[in-house]
Amino acid sequence: MSNEYKAKIGTLVDSISESYKKECYIAPHDLGFLPNRSVIIDTTKALRQLVFPSYFGKTNFRREIQDYHIGELLVCIIECLTKQFTLALKHQAGKSENLSEEHYRQEAGRLCYEFMSKIPQIREFLATDVIAAFDGDPAAKSKDEIIFCYPGVFAISIHRLAHELYKLSVPLIPRIMSEYAHNITGIDIHPGATIGKYFFIDHGTGVVIGETAVIGEHVKIYQGVTLGALSTRGGQKLRGVRRHPCLEDEVTVYSGASILGGDTVVGKGVVIGSNVFITKSVPEGTKVSIKTPELQFSGHAIKEVSIEAFDWVI
Amino acid sequence: MSNEYKAKIGTLVDSISESYKKECYIAPHDLGFLPNRSVIIDTTKALRQLVFPSYFGKTNFRREIQDYHIGELLVCIIECLTKQFTLALKHQAGKSENLSEEHYRQEAGRLCYEFMSKIPQIREFLATDVIAAFDGDPAAKSKDEIIFCYPGVFAISIHRLAHELYKLSVPLIPRIMSEYAHNITGIDIHPGATIGKYFFIDHGTGVVIGETAVIGEHVKIYQGVTLGALSTRGGQKLRGVRRHPCLEDEVTVYSGASILGGDTVVGKGVVIGSNVFITKSVPEGTKVSIKTPELQFSGHAIKEVSIEAFDWVI
Amino acid sequence: MSNEYKAKIGTLVDSISESYKKECYIAPHDLGFLPNRSVIIDTTKALRQLVFPSYFGKTNFRREIQDYHIGELLVCIIECLTKQFTLALKHQAGKSENLSEEHYRQEAGRLCYEFMSKIPQIREFLATDVIAAFDGDPAAKSKDEIIFCYPGVFAISIHRLAHELYKLSVPLIPRIMSEYAHNITGIDIHPGATIGKYFFIDHGTGVVIGETAVIGEHVKIYQGVTLGALSTRGGQKLRGVRRHPCLEDEVTVYSGASILGGDTVVGKGVVIGSNVFITKSVPEGTKVSIKTPELQFSGHAIKEVSIEAFDWVI
Repeated sequence: MSNEYKAKIGTLVDSISESYKKECYIAPHDLGFLPNRSVIIDTTKALRQLVFPSYFGKTNFRREIQDYHIGELLVCIIECLTKQFTLALKHQAGKSENLSEEHYRQEAGRLCYEFMSKIPQIREFLATDVIAAFDGDPAAKSKDEIIFCYPGVFAISIHRLAHELYKLSVPLIPRIMSEYAHNITGIDIHPGATIGKYFFIDHGTGVVIGETAVIGEHVKIYQGVTLGALSTRGGQKLRGVRRHPCLEDEVTVYSGASILGGDTVVGKGVVIGSNVFITKSVPEGTKVSIKTPELQFSGHAIKEVSIEAFDWVI
Repeated sequence: MSNEYKAKIGTLVDSISESYKKECYIAPHDLGFLPNRSVIIDTTKALRQLVFPSYFGKTNFRREIQDYHIGELLVCIIECLTKQFTLALKHQAGKSENLSEEHYRQEAGRLCYEFMSKIPQIREFLATDVIAAFDGDPAAKSKDEIIFCYPGVFAISIHRLAHELYKLSVPLIPRIMSEYAHNITGIDIHPGATIGKYFFIDHGTGVVIGETAVIGEHVKIYQGVTLGALSTRGGQKLRGVRRHPCLEDEVTVYSGASILGGDTVVGKGVVIGSNVFITKSVPEGTKVSIKTPELQFSGHAIKEVSIEAFDWVI
Repeated sequence: MSNEYKAKIGTLVDSISESYKKECYIAPHDLGFLPNRSVIIDTTKALRQLVFPSYFGKTNFRREIQDYHIGELLVCIIECLTKQFTLALKHQAGKSENLSEEHYRQEAGRLCYEFMSKIPQIREFLATDVIAAFDGDPAAKSKDEIIFCYPGVFAISIHRLAHELYKLSVPLIPRIMSEYAHNITGIDIHPGATIGKYFFIDHGTGVVIGETAVIGEHVKIYQGVTLGALSTRGGQKLRGVRRHPCLEDEVTVYSGASILGGDTVVGKGVVIGSNVFITKSVPEGTKVSIKTPELQFSGHAIKEVSIEAFDWVI
């Protein structure tokens, strides 16, 4: 290492070290260790393996010894989650509380057990989501294809897990899980959203489902759909306020549609057409579409083109 | 391990084990081992390395010894694919057939050889796609940038491989490959889609191209475009039916447009503007746009704003 | 290895080897080694660790020894980047130049030092982006959640790094970095784009920001927004020409809106509603929305539905 190089490195270290003391929003925090994002993602993968046995493991699943498979995965998941929950709880409490490490560890253990005991019920819901995907997509060749490949099923699997953690008020970790699913699928479901059985998102890229959205059973959603807030101008003052719509049972929302607002209720069996923009409630059984495509045509040889307003085929 | 902890784990194992016996849609299957998703993705990466030599390998490519590079990759790819094809074929056959493992292995070997012999032709098509990207994007600085960075080129590379497997009726594996590309790029091309030379998708996030879509040569597509089905209400009854549009040569489709339906033919040289929604055929040479932006303006200081309807600049 | 198998492999190797000599656009290049995409991505992760200390490292960050953390990361980053810069510069020069390896290495070292000395300023900007995200989203629970989970913050972090490399005219590497962020987040920001402080992209999937876009301070953008070019028909002839819009300070653009063209200036404080399509300038303080939702309704029991045109709540 030449002296010049050493001096240059020294200058860089000093200036970055100086910067760490400023920019309080991204300075190193001083509350002990933070939860570890990659450990949480690895544990999420292990949870998916537990929920869909025989699909995603590295070793081959054998029914005869399934209790051993379960036990091994469980112990590993519980160990990782308990540690991450402890870090998250301690971090959330910050400097104000002065409780022992052991206090947070015990609370983490309790939350972890509560969470794991929900797995059978989560599986019950996910089984209905796989049925909804198979019934809803003519391109689906088998339930295995759906479990292996469907981004909508991936996203709802992670959501149903993250939502249980959200209900248990575990800090940070459900959001890290849901953002992992968003990275993989382009589907952004906030862990707070309440979603009924038989839920199917097809293709999915660009879907956004907000924190206080409520979705009934047998609901089908396509790529680019937003279930969003009317306004976020209020910023942090809106925290906790109901800002996202409610979709009742058997609602279908086609690609690119936006449904906004905490007072918006989309009634049972409603069909919302592509690119429709809704900010008020829609009564049961209605079909909503954009009135006419409003297109204009020009071409070297053609004067008129008959493109009729699409009706309810979509 | 305390007794209490042991008992808790035991309770969880029992309840999950019980759940594995129910929820038939996501229960462990009992047809032997399933294909392995991560092996298939790793093999897809190796195939990409074979198709674009010197770009993605871990070791440095040397022209003088290229046959050794090819041979090494080939043997590795063939070994992995043959094993995965065997598992997929056996799994598809299910319990109804009673053929030997060797039967499926032989069939898998034959399909694998068929597939690998298509590599030179796939490369011929992909070379045209790289040209189309370079000619179509002023931000492109070199063909290397395109091969390294362009999500559209990534997606069409994986598609051209997956489509050959689809034509050979290999189950499950082409869909796992195409969904891998969807994860990475946000571009969802079903392996069944037929796509001509010189195909370019720019940016690409949110693009959906359905199973029975047919696309000519020199077609250019932007982010958020759907080539979709008019209706999937028929569900599994529609399987195999032509549901997606045909785009003839030299068609351009700008961002956010949707073209739907199996009877919809978009003629040669047609330009479809942003956010246009098409469910009927469009004759050769036409340009289709949304009639007027239909905007409304309000502001503290401004009464009127002259925003003209955009015309054919896009 | 049977003779038959050996012969088959031989045939495949020959045909692929033959293909490598053709298809010049995807043939192996002969300019020595190319930059390595995975090394660049790993280095980008290390840079993110340096920029957000204590959030993404594998080892736990301790303030007391922060200079050691910085020094270790720095030396590793500088070594990797200098090597990759050298390869990129040499590759860009091609066969025309006949300069020594050492020449490129020295230039790479100089560029790398220049770049690393920008880290404190990049951190200054990123701290404002984290504040903007926290202030702008009622669902945000803490700044840690934002740094861990927000795709918009991920994308702008990588962009602020890549943009410095772009300004230093480092070839290829900034685009590999920005496309990495695009893969992860669905947000496609060209490294050329100029973006002011307090920038916030919410959800983000499908956002496209072009090479020559200029964005002021306190700008907020939602999923599916395009800041694009009016036309790319000119292809490579348009390279270097200003093709993308300018957004002045305090502009908000809601989901799915497109703002196109190099002469388009969106004035201070403008609000662009969802799905608006703009190709002309908009004066300061204006709010632009789609005039009416233009919806049609049908339903078995309902004749009329009162859905008013949404106004400026969004």
